[in-house]
Amino acid sequence: MKNYNKTLCAAMILTALSGCQSNQSDTQVTNETVIENNKNNQISQQLATKALSSSLSYDIVESLTVEVGPRLAGSEKDIIAVNWAMNKLESLGFDKVYKESVQVPAWYRGSAKASIIAPFEQPLVISALGGSVSTPDSGIQAQIVRFDTLADLQAADPDSVKGKIAFIDHKTERHITGKGYGKSVGGRSRGAVAAAEKGAVAVVIRSIGTDHDRMAHTGMMRYKDGVAKIPAAALSAPDADMINAMLKRDDNIQLLLNLTSKNLGVATSYNVIAEVTGSSKPDEVVLIGAHLDSWDEGTGAIDDGAGVAIVTAAAKLIQDLPNKPARTIRVVLYAAEEVGLVGGKAYAKQHADELTTHYIAAESDFGAGEIYQIDFNVNPAVFEQVKVEHSGMTVNGVKLGNNKATGGPDVSMMPSLGVPVASLRQDGTDYFDYHHTPNDTLDKIDPKALAQNVAAYAQFAYIMAQSELDLRPLAKKDDKK
Amino acid sequence: MKNYNKTLCAAMILTALSGCQSNQSDTQVTNETVIENNKNNQISQQLATKALSSSLSYDIVESLTVEVGPRLAGSEKDIIAVNWAMNKLESLGFDKVYKESVQVPAWYRGSAKASIIAPFEQPLVISALGGSVSTPDSGIQAQIVRFDTLADLQAADPDSVKGKIAFIDHKTERHITGKGYGKSVGGRSRGAVAAAEKGAVAVVIRSIGTDHDRMAHTGMMRYKDGVAKIPAAALSAPDADMINAMLKRDDNIQLLLNLTSKNLGVATSYNVIAEVTGSSKPDEVVLIGAHLDSWDEGTGAIDDGAGVAIVTAAAKLIQDLPNKPARTIRVVLYAAEEVGLVGGKAYAKQHADELTTHYIAAESDFGAGEIYQIDFNVNPAVFEQVKVEHSGMTVNGVKLGNNKATGGPDVSMMPSLGVPVASLRQDGTDYFDYHHTPNDTLDKIDPKALAQNVAAYAQFAYIMAQSELDLRPLAKKDDKK
Repeated sequence: MKNYNKTLCAAMILTALSGCQSNQSDTQVTNETVIENNKNNQISQQLATKALSSSLSYDIVESLTVEVGPRLAGSEKDIIAVNWAMNKLESLGFDKVYKESVQVPAWYRGSAKASIIAPFEQPLVISALGGSVSTPDSGIQAQIVRFDTLADLQAADPDSVKGKIAFIDHKTERHITGKGYGKSVGGRSRGAVAAAEKGAVAVVIRSIGTDHDRMAHTGMMRYKDGVAKIPAAALSAPDADMINAMLKRDDNIQLLLNLTSKNLGVATSYNVIAEVTGSSKPDEVVLIGAHLDSWDEGTGAIDDGAGVAIVTAAAKLIQDLPNKPARTIRVVLYAAEEVGLVGGKAYAKQHADELTTHYIAAESDFGAGEIYQIDFNVNPAVFEQVKVEHSGMTVNGVKLGNNKATGGPDVSMMPSLGVPVASLRQDGTDYFDYHHTPNDTLDKIDPKALAQNVAAYAQFAYIMAQSELDLRPLAKKDDKK
Repeated sequence: MKNYNKTLCAAMILTALSGCQSNQSDTQVTNETVIENNKNNQISQQLATKALSSSLSYDIVESLTVEVGPRLAGSEKDIIAVNWAMNKLESLGFDKVYKESVQVPAWYRGSAKASIIAPFEQPLVISALGGSVSTPDSGIQAQIVRFDTLADLQAADPDSVKGKIAFIDHKTERHITGKGYGKSVGGRSRGAVAAAEKGAVAVVIRSIGTDHDRMAHTGMMRYKDGVAKIPAAALSAPDADMINAMLKRDDNIQLLLNLTSKNLGVATSYNVIAEVTGSSKPDEVVLIGAHLDSWDEGTGAIDDGAGVAIVTAAAKLIQDLPNKPARTIRVVLYAAEEVGLVGGKAYAKQHADELTTHYIAAESDFGAGEIYQIDFNVNPAVFEQVKVEHSGMTVNGVKLGNNKATGGPDVSMMPSLGVPVASLRQDGTDYFDYHHTPNDTLDKIDPKALAQNVAAYAQFAYIMAQSELDLRPLAKKDDKK
């Protein structure tokens, strides 16, 4: 962790200079714009300085994880979390605090047990995948058939799979961007359908995670109409290794799987929203979001208590400024992200008419690692100017990146609806060690890194709320730089 | 990991030289001794070279953890482990393989559940401590009273404890020697008695571990005649942290604890023994041991599958020598170490008449980290010569240490019975991250470090089986250097 505070004053001078430099776009930069940008930079640096010395974000995530804890969408705890959020946002003095109802799928985890029955009896550590059906009360016992990847299962001869339990053994690679997850997660979300299409009676996967702890990683899976719904669970990495060691000894590994999970239909949850009302363009919105729901085996600290804390604390810093920025800052704490971006989709639908006045949107949902880069998806004609406006963030360790941002899960549909987005890229090297496991607890959050995130979000939100640039139209999908 | 092989030839010259140096003891070193030592060193280096390029030790611990897995003393799996050990030792071709029955306490873990009921409902991750009684079927609900240490509980006013659940929150420090464990483990073993003496209805402890995983560390606890037997469990470190965060908010934390564990009386287990018969002094014994039993939530890889593998593979290298050493090498795989050094104590009793011909004993029971030092407890008059004899081990990364060894848990009573011991000190920096948790699995073992252990044990056992030194009598307890 660098000492940001010490270099902030120097940075204010540097970023002021960068605001004066000629830029490569065709747009003329007026003297007024330069002066305005310098003023904005100055305030954004002050926000960063305050963020780095404040414990507010850590206090928020401690409060959420200790006073609420696990908050699975559609559960009783989900409503407790909504009430917590309303109270917290109100106590922080935002200009507006409200909630919008969302219908979310509800699912009961129940118990998840598994053991190898033969050739060697061994209890296993598993987790039911979210949305999985139960097994019969007596469980399902069958031979394991192993595949390196989902694609290998999809390519398999059905005769080799029929009546067996498919085991997708895809290892997740560690990477700062988390890109290993994208390669392996298909086995979790689509493994049950692929296995059932081949006649399997259940599917188990190597956890989608980068750790070697004896904990399994849960996460959402999906069924498909017309394809048998078979039970689905994740194995801890050491248990996946053990099955491989057994397969070296014997082809016929008999697994007994017993899940009591079940889908409970639809429940009501809420997107919880707070606003800092804009001073001169109150109808234009800079949206910073995170999701309030979590998986249920940890306390939802890195996923996504951290995000809730980051965007709330960033907005609170702007709320407390003597002069509010031009546009409204809207904090959206989404419902039911984990079970299918439900709150994000509902928000986009409920606010469809208002999206033309959404200036830009970003979601924090990748833990609490330091932000090392900010990417955008804005009108390519102003991209370079947008970067210049954000150059003050470099002092806080944030590089100015590319124009290919997706914005985060709950705002991922925004670009297709014409809304610009930004991605404030967090160091996710360790994120998938803990993600969706009992290990997602408060101790995995470094308060200093969390505060650096708040600083970056406060800078971004303030600058965007003040910018004079027209961020639309976005590049067509095939035409991004 | 250094490249030991490359330097072994150079070492043979060096250690030959060291054998020729004058030493500080009063004993005269004859020419014959020097020549003999050099020959012993040469063979011990050959053993080390073979050990470092062999996968036998890893194969053994893989076999034990995959084919047997958890093997709690007195359980069905314990007997499966005994049979596994007999078969494994016989298949390796030792001169003798036999077992000796031991009566061991049997305990049923059952389920262990806990949750905070108020002021915030939170499920906790706990583990029943070995030997704990159950709670009533409906559990025990009471207020938590927290103590930094066992000593603080012992010093508490009984009025502050009576009717409550005592919480001993002692953090275990990380250290290469594992000495942090010694400071905190009293809360586990003696916490229930101390709490009951003050009128507590149950005791929970912060896990005796150095990790921050949401796993609890089990381990043995004891009751005392005349003191109420109250249930005892360990909390994961994140759960202990959570309780502290709650105590900042409210003094009255209500914990609901439900254990179904019970003591099952006495069962029969076995010390499993293999021997390489000595060529000229077959009745004199160099004992290298490990324990075969394990806790039941992991697969007993580092505790103590690694030790089983290390001493077995080391003895096998000596078994395969064209010329056996003078003394017998005896591998003892002890029963029921975890539940009170039961196999070690039984061995000492059953072999009481033979202990005068036990030349030296050592146990490997601290994981699979590299051995960085060898300590002895031998006649101080020959200590310097003993070190000279072992100087070849320095090439394998093993420093020659002090004369204050305890020898390992199952041989810890040996010095008081007159038997010299050695401690081959393993790097235990990470040992208490995994110890007694579900995380004690094969993947935590580095095959290279394991092979380095085998090299060190083979060198030690061979040199001791050939030594002409008289290692007795030991220094009196207050008179060690």
